[in-house]
Amino acid sequence: MRSSEESALLTDFYQLTMLAAYFEEGMTETAVFEFFVRKRPECRNFFLACGLEPALDYLENFAFTQEEIDWIARLGRFKPAFLDWLASLRFTGDVDAMPEGTPFFPHEPILRVVAPLPEAQIVETRLINLLQLSTLTASKAARVRLAAGDALLVDFGLRRAHGAEAGMLSARASYLAGFDGTSNTLAGMRWDIPVYGTMAHSFVQAHVSELSAFEAFARIHPAATTLLIDTYDTEAAAEALVPLAHTLRAEGIALRAVRLDSGDLAAHARRVRAILDAAGLAEIKIFASGNLDEYEVERLRAQGAPIDGFGVGTRMNVSADAPYLDCAYKLQEYAGKPRRKRSEGKATWPGRKQVFRRYDEKGRLAGDLLTLVGEEAEGEPLLQPVMRAGKRLRAAPPLSALRAQAMASLNALPPPLKSLGAAPPYPVAIGDALTRLAQEIDAQAH
Amino acid sequence: MRSSEESALLTDFYQLTMLAAYFEEGMTETAVFEFFVRKRPECRNFFLACGLEPALDYLENFAFTQEEIDWIARLGRFKPAFLDWLASLRFTGDVDAMPEGTPFFPHEPILRVVAPLPEAQIVETRLINLLQLSTLTASKAARVRLAAGDALLVDFGLRRAHGAEAGMLSARASYLAGFDGTSNTLAGMRWDIPVYGTMAHSFVQAHVSELSAFEAFARIHPAATTLLIDTYDTEAAAEALVPLAHTLRAEGIALRAVRLDSGDLAAHARRVRAILDAAGLAEIKIFASGNLDEYEVERLRAQGAPIDGFGVGTRMNVSADAPYLDCAYKLQEYAGKPRRKRSEGKATWPGRKQVFRRYDEKGRLAGDLLTLVGEEAEGEPLLQPVMRAGKRLRAAPPLSALRAQAMASLNALPPPLKSLGAAPPYPVAIGDALTRLAQEIDAQAH
Repeated sequence: MRSSEESALLTDFYQLTMLAAYFEEGMTETAVFEFFVRKRPECRNFFLACGLEPALDYLENFAFTQEEIDWIARLGRFKPAFLDWLASLRFTGDVDAMPEGTPFFPHEPILRVVAPLPEAQIVETRLINLLQLSTLTASKAARVRLAAGDALLVDFGLRRAHGAEAGMLSARASYLAGFDGTSNTLAGMRWDIPVYGTMAHSFVQAHVSELSAFEAFARIHPAATTLLIDTYDTEAAAEALVPLAHTLRAEGIALRAVRLDSGDLAAHARRVRAILDAAGLAEIKIFASGNLDEYEVERLRAQGAPIDGFGVGTRMNVSADAPYLDCAYKLQEYAGKPRRKRSEGKATWPGRKQVFRRYDEKGRLAGDLLTLVGEEAEGEPLLQPVMRAGKRLRAAPPLSALRAQAMASLNALPPPLKSLGAAPPYPVAIGDALTRLAQEIDAQAH
Repeated sequence: MRSSEESALLTDFYQLTMLAAYFEEGMTETAVFEFFVRKRPECRNFFLACGLEPALDYLENFAFTQEEIDWIARLGRFKPAFLDWLASLRFTGDVDAMPEGTPFFPHEPILRVVAPLPEAQIVETRLINLLQLSTLTASKAARVRLAAGDALLVDFGLRRAHGAEAGMLSARASYLAGFDGTSNTLAGMRWDIPVYGTMAHSFVQAHVSELSAFEAFARIHPAATTLLIDTYDTEAAAEALVPLAHTLRAEGIALRAVRLDSGDLAAHARRVRAILDAAGLAEIKIFASGNLDEYEVERLRAQGAPIDGFGVGTRMNVSADAPYLDCAYKLQEYAGKPRRKRSEGKATWPGRKQVFRRYDEKGRLAGDLLTLVGEEAEGEPLLQPVMRAGKRLRAAPPLSALRAQAMASLNALPPPLKSLGAAPPYPVAIGDALTRLAQEIDAQAH
């Protein structure tokens, strides 16, 4: 059996029941779906688009295996002709999307699929699954980067991410959003993200003494030693390692950093900094971890805690203060006719849409316009062609290039949006033609 | 490249730096690690153990590929002899664990690993990753089941679960915790979970009219038709489908249910129920979905809303009110000596532990005792041997059997723990020998 990350069967069962109907009814004309976020949580001033490359991988490789088709057949709910057709189904459509790392706002599509209805429909579940997770964690990680200034930031969250793919894609998203690296070794291998790692408390505990653990580790990893000093008593450990640090330095081994992982991190950092500085060990940096997020990082920096780097895990990876987005992938047009869902609280803007972004004289975001494709407008059109007839128009860019672009975009945010507190909403105007179209559709319905 | 679900490299990089040190130092004596949750969030009265079988799969198949070893080598931080040894590393240890579906409480280990130190260490990250996710969602899903009484419950959360594995393991966990099925088709295939699915708004929108969408769907799926009636106007759709339902009934096609997905679900359900009943269609059930969780299900049932089943997604799958657990996998013993971490706020109980559970005369949970293995105690010992020398002691039980056991366990919870509000803590006593051991270790440290 294939891994769930690769399987076309990783989809809501209603996609299959709907496809059976589309097949019987011959409903295979062109459909347009768009992915967007409906609402902004209080604790997010913007979203950072992420997940496009994994989504394109999925679309390029979409196919059922014979094993999967056989299993569907055994459910006894589908006709053989449909199953044969399903076995041959591939994604042959077009995709336009915002580049990964682009800040965006509610109701702005970040991805548009134009494809025969069954193809555009069946990929719904997994596209949402991939785009939500990546955008969710990139948007959270961007806040951590904005709070951390130039401090070193390492993703520590694999263990409490929600499963394997969440650990992978949150490592990718956080690096794209400005982290410096990850503890997730496989993510390092897959996307060339710098990997960071030192020691766990168990390493200290397994040795006869804390100091013997430190010494053994430093001698085995002379070029990259960070010592975890909070297993028993943080300041006692800092005092104890002073003579060891001098001995090692005499042998040419420089300790790089100590890590604090519990207690009042600001107070410990101050005391440890003083101990190290007094001992002539100013070059040893202080790295902090343990229940961190953007709020805590901001608080520590506001207190002037002498911390050079942060390991940020769980709360970033699961986006703890907003662990899901109110996002959707909605039909906007079928067979040339715009469509609009009008369910209470869930109404959508119909048709194929584009987002134009204006910048002020300082290069900062100054306002967006949501338009119908083809409407003339000022500014930069954010959705760009990325796939035609089921094939990527270009290879996946290196993640480091996407990261550089994301950093530039974050830098161009208006200052209120960069703060952690709730900012006034960023202006997103609706184009005239789009407004008229929505009104026309509503009028026809009555 | 292997999928991330299978890769031994899906681990924190510090596991590799520590293993290199253990290898150099010859530290391969037996280590004991236990997985437990430190603290209970306000919104959970108990946890439901889940994730053991995926964890055992991982341990049985643990091995690096040559491609992975070659990548590690290229980092230039490890010696060839270590890499050769790493390539041959397998998990050869023992595992004892609580059966999946067992309710448990803070500081009670649900899984113990006894293995040579490097083996027990390197599996830390992925074991936490698997056990947290499954336990998190099973514990949330159990609350939804307790709130829903006998109503039909279907997992709808794949699209907003955090990636592929989260969608899979939350489908598994929610079924184990009492859901009736899932929309996740691949989870249905992998674990024989009943799959449910009907239609999306896009299906209705793609047709020339709502009614033509309903009729086409019913004729193509005569045995299992649920119609989504909130795309435009819920009550209008209910009125409109009455004549269709009678026509279809005359042809032997019985509509099974209608689905409501937006607005005031209780009010819509009442009005739709009245429309259907007045038309002699009492057999058509009402199924509700949209932003549901245990609180909303309880509220709808308390209002007497005539809803027969619930599709519960996002908030359950991501455990939105508690999206992570304060859990850990900690070294408790090495080379025959008990170990205790004393970091502030993170102190652990040392040694190999067992949990004894007592029941009252009604078969309800009456109190637990956390003891050292070997201590005599009343009650049922909850941790049982499941793996010896790296091999399962028995095949994975069918998920339906685990589900039945979990249902019986939930039923045996004391009534206050079954409520959604915060209950007084369940009594977990600490055995005398364990208390003494912790004191001895602390005394030695001073």
